[in-house]
Amino acid sequence: MNAAPLFPRLALIGFGLIGGSIARGARTQGLAGEIVATARSAATRARVKELGQEFGIVDRVVETNAEAVKDADLVILSIPVGVCGDVAKEIAPYLKPGAIISDVGSVKGAVARDMAPHLPANVHFIPAHPVAGTENSGPDSGFAELFNNRWCILTPPPDADAKAVERLAEFWGTLGANVEIMTPEHHDLVLAITSHLPHLIAYTIVSTAEELEGVTSSEVLKFSAGGFRDFTRIAASDPTMWRDVFLTNKDAVLEMLGEFQEDLSKLTRAIRRGDGEALFDHFTRTRAIRRGIVNLGQDEAGADFGRRHANLAKKPT
Amino acid sequence: MNAAPLFPRLALIGFGLIGGSIARGARTQGLAGEIVATARSAATRARVKELGQEFGIVDRVVETNAEAVKDADLVILSIPVGVCGDVAKEIAPYLKPGAIISDVGSVKGAVARDMAPHLPANVHFIPAHPVAGTENSGPDSGFAELFNNRWCILTPPPDADAKAVERLAEFWGTLGANVEIMTPEHHDLVLAITSHLPHLIAYTIVSTAEELEGVTSSEVLKFSAGGFRDFTRIAASDPTMWRDVFLTNKDAVLEMLGEFQEDLSKLTRAIRRGDGEALFDHFTRTRAIRRGIVNLGQDEAGADFGRRHANLAKKPT
Repeated sequence: MNAAPLFPRLALIGFGLIGGSIARGARTQGLAGEIVATARSAATRARVKELGQEFGIVDRVVETNAEAVKDADLVILSIPVGVCGDVAKEIAPYLKPGAIISDVGSVKGAVARDMAPHLPANVHFIPAHPVAGTENSGPDSGFAELFNNRWCILTPPPDADAKAVERLAEFWGTLGANVEIMTPEHHDLVLAITSHLPHLIAYTIVSTAEELEGVTSSEVLKFSAGGFRDFTRIAASDPTMWRDVFLTNKDAVLEMLGEFQEDLSKLTRAIRRGDGEALFDHFTRTRAIRRGIVNLGQDEAGADFGRRHANLAKKPT
Repeated sequence: MNAAPLFPRLALIGFGLIGGSIARGARTQGLAGEIVATARSAATRARVKELGQEFGIVDRVVETNAEAVKDADLVILSIPVGVCGDVAKEIAPYLKPGAIISDVGSVKGAVARDMAPHLPANVHFIPAHPVAGTENSGPDSGFAELFNNRWCILTPPPDADAKAVERLAEFWGTLGANVEIMTPEHHDLVLAITSHLPHLIAYTIVSTAEELEGVTSSEVLKFSAGGFRDFTRIAASDPTMWRDVFLTNKDAVLEMLGEFQEDLSKLTRAIRRGDGEALFDHFTRTRAIRRGIVNLGQDEAGADFGRRHANLAKKPT
């Protein structure tokens, strides 16, 4: 006989890559007795209903956020950061006393600021951020393994109930994640460099390449294996989500951008002056960081991200 | 019975990722009767000798470049761009009349300028650049499939012998590459955006992340799955090769850097002003470029570069 699920009822608001992966993982791991889902668009709700009927990844799909949170023991918002405040206001009157309310947003300061004032005192508000993703979005893009061996950061308010924090940590741990706790401010600084700035740079260079005179788009695509293609993956991420990230974590992103610009100026100067020694030293240092990421299990050890290389057909003789 | 090989004797000077992949591919495809290799360091030569004995990927390893090119019908330099001129001077007296002399450098203007003056009139000098690679280097890093479905750019001088160009194109085509011909100047501009600038940016951001105050290196590694890790792969590439690329393609790289800076300023301004519409529009356009690269077979269609995700162990009940 199975043990009782960690949460009798789980409500998911939003069913993109992250919401859909939570549903699949929670179902696989038996983390919730019942999984209720909703989404803003009717098309997404219809597709999630189909996925529920076919694969059992959700039990019920409802039309409204209010209906979704009713009697739910854990409510997770997997929606763009910019709308979390509005949704908190909308669901507040319908929350079950003692419920845990969480989210998955890539920015934590703004989410806490926007949501907390609306939520009643008798629920536990614990913001969260699973640091995982792919460039795909939509209800079909999720998978149960997405969070496995990734980190999930919780940013509970100072007066948060320790037991509630522990239950949410157990939820994410069972989805495969390593849980870490920090302040929203520190989270936003760390993610500005590990995630937000890389996305901004990737978005920039991909459009630079597109708009060049003298080099055609077709050439950019054909010769992308020289390095450019690595940048295009994250520049294909969900535009709404990323717009909101940059609007709500503006200060930390601008700070990191300033640091980046200083470093880029140094390298540019070395190129302009033909300072080979400075370039060589710099390029040698960065190799070690890659090794650290691979050793930590955060990336493939195989060359080229483990991309497959098609077999070379033997030349007919 | 096999057809006669395209080149009775192939000489490889340099045996890193590219030289080693050429040897393996040429052997697999029967492109050369005999493969002779050499490398600057004694350690590399010793290792190549072992690889030859164990896997037959080369027939002979010799101590000097002069010895390697003797009687060779195709000579390929797979060495850093900065030393191509010196090696051309060194091998010139020993080249077989009618031989094809080529290279694999990521910069073509400088290579042609440095090598051509030393080479005798009775050989065919046809610079080449296979646009393929991984972050690994050294004699063990190569594999026969590296060039498969990648492009190889030839930049023959205007008076090049058409038959020699055709033979070199057939060599690369049989290694799996799509061959394209362009001027060295155009090559250097195209690669500045598709390869050199992305590497420069990746090298910069990886060191920015390393040197931050307020965020530890361990945090950068742990939360790298948010995007940063995609940049670290190409920042782990061979430092000597990349130093030479930036020293020898300075003008085109600085030009592309200027374009990139303009675009980055635009996005920075949008963030500073909170212009969500401009951000959203920008982020929507870049998605299409990723699709183009995947459709062209230049990257994995699977999410996350097709990285494997470890199975999520079912929670014990």
